[in-house]
Amino acid sequence: MLNERHIASLRHLARSGKSVLGPEDDLAGYETGARHDKGRAAFVLRPETSEELSGFVAYCVTNGISLIPQSGNTGVVSGSTPDRSKLQGVLSLDRMNTVFDLNLRNRSLRVGAGMRLSEVNARLEEHGLFFPVDLSADPMIGGMIATNTGGGRFLRYGDVRANTLGLKAVLADDNGSILDLNKGLRKNNTGVDWKQVFIGTVGTFGIVTEAVLNLEPLPRQSATALVVPGSDDAVFQVLASLERKLGPQLSAFESMSGNAMRHAFDHAPSLRNPFANGDIPDLAILVEATRTWEPREGEISIDDLLEACLAEIWEEPGEPLADALVGRPEEIWALRHSISEGVKNAGHLFAFDLAFERGILMDFLAYMHNHLPDTFPDLEICDFGHIGDGGVHFNLSHPGGPPADLEAYEKRLRDWVIDICVNEFDGSFSAEHGIGRKNQAYYDQYTPDAIKKLSRALKQVTSPGPLGSVHFD
Amino acid sequence: MLNERHIASLRHLARSGKSVLGPEDDLAGYETGARHDKGRAAFVLRPETSEELSGFVAYCVTNGISLIPQSGNTGVVSGSTPDRSKLQGVLSLDRMNTVFDLNLRNRSLRVGAGMRLSEVNARLEEHGLFFPVDLSADPMIGGMIATNTGGGRFLRYGDVRANTLGLKAVLADDNGSILDLNKGLRKNNTGVDWKQVFIGTVGTFGIVTEAVLNLEPLPRQSATALVVPGSDDAVFQVLASLERKLGPQLSAFESMSGNAMRHAFDHAPSLRNPFANGDIPDLAILVEATRTWEPREGEISIDDLLEACLAEIWEEPGEPLADALVGRPEEIWALRHSISEGVKNAGHLFAFDLAFERGILMDFLAYMHNHLPDTFPDLEICDFGHIGDGGVHFNLSHPGGPPADLEAYEKRLRDWVIDICVNEFDGSFSAEHGIGRKNQAYYDQYTPDAIKKLSRALKQVTSPGPLGSVHFD
Repeated sequence: MLNERHIASLRHLARSGKSVLGPEDDLAGYETGARHDKGRAAFVLRPETSEELSGFVAYCVTNGISLIPQSGNTGVVSGSTPDRSKLQGVLSLDRMNTVFDLNLRNRSLRVGAGMRLSEVNARLEEHGLFFPVDLSADPMIGGMIATNTGGGRFLRYGDVRANTLGLKAVLADDNGSILDLNKGLRKNNTGVDWKQVFIGTVGTFGIVTEAVLNLEPLPRQSATALVVPGSDDAVFQVLASLERKLGPQLSAFESMSGNAMRHAFDHAPSLRNPFANGDIPDLAILVEATRTWEPREGEISIDDLLEACLAEIWEEPGEPLADALVGRPEEIWALRHSISEGVKNAGHLFAFDLAFERGILMDFLAYMHNHLPDTFPDLEICDFGHIGDGGVHFNLSHPGGPPADLEAYEKRLRDWVIDICVNEFDGSFSAEHGIGRKNQAYYDQYTPDAIKKLSRALKQVTSPGPLGSVHFD
Repeated sequence: MLNERHIASLRHLARSGKSVLGPEDDLAGYETGARHDKGRAAFVLRPETSEELSGFVAYCVTNGISLIPQSGNTGVVSGSTPDRSKLQGVLSLDRMNTVFDLNLRNRSLRVGAGMRLSEVNARLEEHGLFFPVDLSADPMIGGMIATNTGGGRFLRYGDVRANTLGLKAVLADDNGSILDLNKGLRKNNTGVDWKQVFIGTVGTFGIVTEAVLNLEPLPRQSATALVVPGSDDAVFQVLASLERKLGPQLSAFESMSGNAMRHAFDHAPSLRNPFANGDIPDLAILVEATRTWEPREGEISIDDLLEACLAEIWEEPGEPLADALVGRPEEIWALRHSISEGVKNAGHLFAFDLAFERGILMDFLAYMHNHLPDTFPDLEICDFGHIGDGGVHFNLSHPGGPPADLEAYEKRLRDWVIDICVNEFDGSFSAEHGIGRKNQAYYDQYTPDAIKKLSRALKQVTSPGPLGSVHFD
């Protein structure tokens, strides 16, 4: 199916010598994902424009060659890397990073799918604007769209879907059709909103090459607190009170389990332990309040406001708060952002990215604390996440390294956790990481047949060619 | 195709005597739309549950009977009424108004598609919550989803799409398949987000029977001002400054043309004319600032804040403001809400619902003021709308009643305006009213062939049966 002749033909189609990497080049960076996965690519395509990309796709579709779209390759579900067959080509967006067309009146940005989030925001800073989907990783815009990332300020700004005005997408059909969808319009109801099909579907229905993003004013004041709820039930009392008292000034409400924080402190000794006597509670919540508007004479400062709100909640019936520290934002966010690495270094990590109706999240965690020890006694629950929107990085650590018979153990664990998530608590097995080879089996198992049938048909309608690491069938 | 036997069979399938209205019943209310359109229905189905509705749909699909979904019937593009053939049945959602399942922790509401917006918000008020899509009309939830309405606070809260967490939809396939999509999850990326296909597509791809809506805290403080910009160019200077100074406290930025205001005053004499000497300017902007949070001791009041912001903008270079009146909200909103009726009564109305990238809207209006008089000298431009999101109700009035040869005149006018909107200014010919028989021709003309082909195929995939007033092909 795939031979030297095809690579020669692709080189012939290329508009530059940089656009095609073959077996003689170093492909390792394109074959290896952020976690766990190592594949083998037959070749790597690095087009610079939608038109060049379209030509590559048309050729590969016509010749039955499977392509895996890849942007920043920071995903964690093996969605952007080839399998081990050496029969798939990687279609990298890493050279599609030149378009940067800022529209201040529309508060929008047309940007190439290969630009990194950090670069987008660095270039926007002088205009007092940013793309408000906040992540610990530094993905490219295309991958953010492919997974519909949410992140730490979802509560305030929503996900990528909510902040995407328009898309350019290339279909895996015989022509490599280019669709230019919705430009920068904020209101447009003249038929199917086709851009939605390409958001969160990991490049299987088409390859996003450009996006028009909604931009938001940069925060100008922010305050952060570390809050220890008096009980699991109090978590939603605190959240509801803060929503009532802060309105859209509440920009994050992030949970950190005691185990997660402990591993963060162990891993990053420069972190200050802010708790009294260093006693790490079972659960702490990072609360962030921000204002995007210019500070105004006589206005209560955001720190004082957050402190006053927490003081009032302290007095509410039911003892909702056990502790509350209004602190230096850098310190508290550093703790939050050190968790991922800390947990990863504490043992062998089994990471789950789950979501629930937000009222149900604490019930799920309580259930797990009750039942996990019976079934998987060696594991430690090191969860952290986004209580304000029902998302949780339900991370489990096996101290001292991987368990014996890792593969079977992991399958048994994943099957057990995800079954409880989906069947007992009506949750999602992928909150914001999307689908890849790693969780394909759960798509197959938990997606209703009617939806699988529709999605299979939609794939035929949009991109019938072999595109993407996921099978929507 | 359609005879008495079919109506008898539908009655047999019905779960109540109220569920099927036949030729012997009064169907007028279901045959007549909010504007211009009067059709004839073969029958009206009024199911009470998704299951009853599913049975009706399956029967009609199997027997080739065309159904027109209808909810509040307040739409203005003939999307919810039957044609004059008397061969179509109306599928009314007006009895699907019993589900009201409030989830305070999730800040969401599961609601029947047949409940009116006014009832939803009345029942939410005691909880300090509302569904934040603000409209002058009082549609049912199903129709709001079918048209993806935006309304006057889009700038702050987004459209229906942005506030819909989940949907239940019935497909027009042989089984009347019921899809339950996403429940109340805020984060879920496990495949295609199928609910998006049913939002803004006027019931052609499936009938929405229930929705899970995002709710927002009710505003607790609000201030309103009437602002006269110093020039067209100043409009965006004022908007940008207010966004910078108010952040998410800015909740509306609504334009009203001089002609539109004049007709509102003429039509509703109880309205107070707030302008100096009663001189109505060519353009005024309603600015609204709101806070959803509890008022706090020492905090600047929202009125004082809005006044201070406008005073600062007054001093900005370029004389952005010619006048600014911070006033009683009821009065200013009454003016805004009287425009529709006022313009309708001033002559024969030709209404357009257009959208642009928001920076381009003023250019379009300037173009029209320059060129409309040459081509349609009798018409008066009475626009008003949503500058903050690029939408404009571009209403044209023919004084004294309809022009001679109305039909040809209207076609010529619509073709001319929409061609300029779409081809010269990259705009949308339906910002927030969706598609119906009235603007079907513009869908056919301005939708790229590739998109028409995809949408036609998607229709076959989802609801191959004869459903809806629009043809996506």
